[in-house]
Amino acid sequence: MTKPQPGLFITFEGGEGVGKSTNIAFCAEWLRARGIEVVVTREPGGTEIAETIRERLLKAHHAETMQPLTELLLVFAARAQHLQALIQPALARGAWVLCDRFTDSTIAYQGFGRQLPLAQIEQLKALVQQGLEPDCTLLLEAPLAVGMGRARGRADQAGEAVDRFEQEQLDFFERVQQGFDWLTTQHERFRRIDAAQPLTAVQQQIEQVLLTLLPGADS
Amino acid sequence: MTKPQPGLFITFEGGEGVGKSTNIAFCAEWLRARGIEVVVTREPGGTEIAETIRERLLKAHHAETMQPLTELLLVFAARAQHLQALIQPALARGAWVLCDRFTDSTIAYQGFGRQLPLAQIEQLKALVQQGLEPDCTLLLEAPLAVGMGRARGRADQAGEAVDRFEQEQLDFFERVQQGFDWLTTQHERFRRIDAAQPLTAVQQQIEQVLLTLLPGADS
Repeated sequence: MTKPQPGLFITFEGGEGVGKSTNIAFCAEWLRARGIEVVVTREPGGTEIAETIRERLLKAHHAETMQPLTELLLVFAARAQHLQALIQPALARGAWVLCDRFTDSTIAYQGFGRQLPLAQIEQLKALVQQGLEPDCTLLLEAPLAVGMGRARGRADQAGEAVDRFEQEQLDFFERVQQGFDWLTTQHERFRRIDAAQPLTAVQQQIEQVLLTLLPGADS
Repeated sequence: MTKPQPGLFITFEGGEGVGKSTNIAFCAEWLRARGIEVVVTREPGGTEIAETIRERLLKAHHAETMQPLTELLLVFAARAQHLQALIQPALARGAWVLCDRFTDSTIAYQGFGRQLPLAQIEQLKALVQQGLEPDCTLLLEAPLAVGMGRARGRADQAGEAVDRFEQEQLDFFERVQQGFDWLTTQHERFRRIDAAQPLTAVQQQIEQVLLTLLPGADS
């Protein structure tokens, strides 16, 4: 038996309500139709243990305020579990992993949003990822008002309260968006998708990216 | 108003069943009788958020195995919260903090016990503690058979199952003990207490240490 070609690790990033879930489902279907094993997952979370850490992170209304450094360490605890228990084994057997948010979100939300030192995040990233980076990152972009309106409408429809991150103020989300902008200047793996367009136009852009990733494609 | 003299940070370390809780209670009473404000706390835990992280750490029987690096990051997430929300404010107002386990336990259990790289632990220690060290560490020592017997007897009496750490094998606990031995060679703050003696003799040893810590004592 020959060792399988490792799969690709594709992450989806962007602010609230930019359509990550819908478009990840589209990518999964598109790739499966071409005979590729696909694992769809998300951060924080993705495994039983990591999901319980996610619950703790998103829980609003503590009597006690969660310290920013506590939040950062919990995010990377969940990530260490997710990488070792799910992502790396899937890639090793040749599956493609589609992940809703990854370390770029930590840099955008905790680094730019909460203004934690980027050096602390980079240090934990190096410890947990040991050099592993996504092969490709699709950044779904929409004006803040569009995304926030969608996220809030979705929560209202589901009769859900907004979570601890969605409660943040507008200037927080503006800093998050600046974080994503900055990241695109740091890594060649980013592909910017205009997510304010109608869905079919968004998916045409995504399809163009996927075509470049298929085995044998000129990327 | 003059700023209060900062309190002392005293940690209690040692294996299972060496009598940490009993002797911390003794120290608290002894210090309070001398007019000192005392805060008794423990790790992992000590605050609402840190205690929920503790529950996650001690929970046995996952369908999924917790990765050693996940465990390490959770320990330091709880510690960051504990330090910033409880220990540092208490020390700043002049209280003495008596803490059942601290980073020395992480080095002994995760470093020596689980054989995680000490460099990883030191890196997280530097990130979370920013140079803060205990002023004094009482290491309660008893032969492994004595301590393990006490710990198991206590769990049986309470009708409790042993937790995820207590389920470990004997060679794990031997490595933990070697870890504590090694730590005493690295830090002058350690005071070794022979905890295999009768309780009154143990408490005489502890009292001798406390006398050296009182304001105005020659240490």
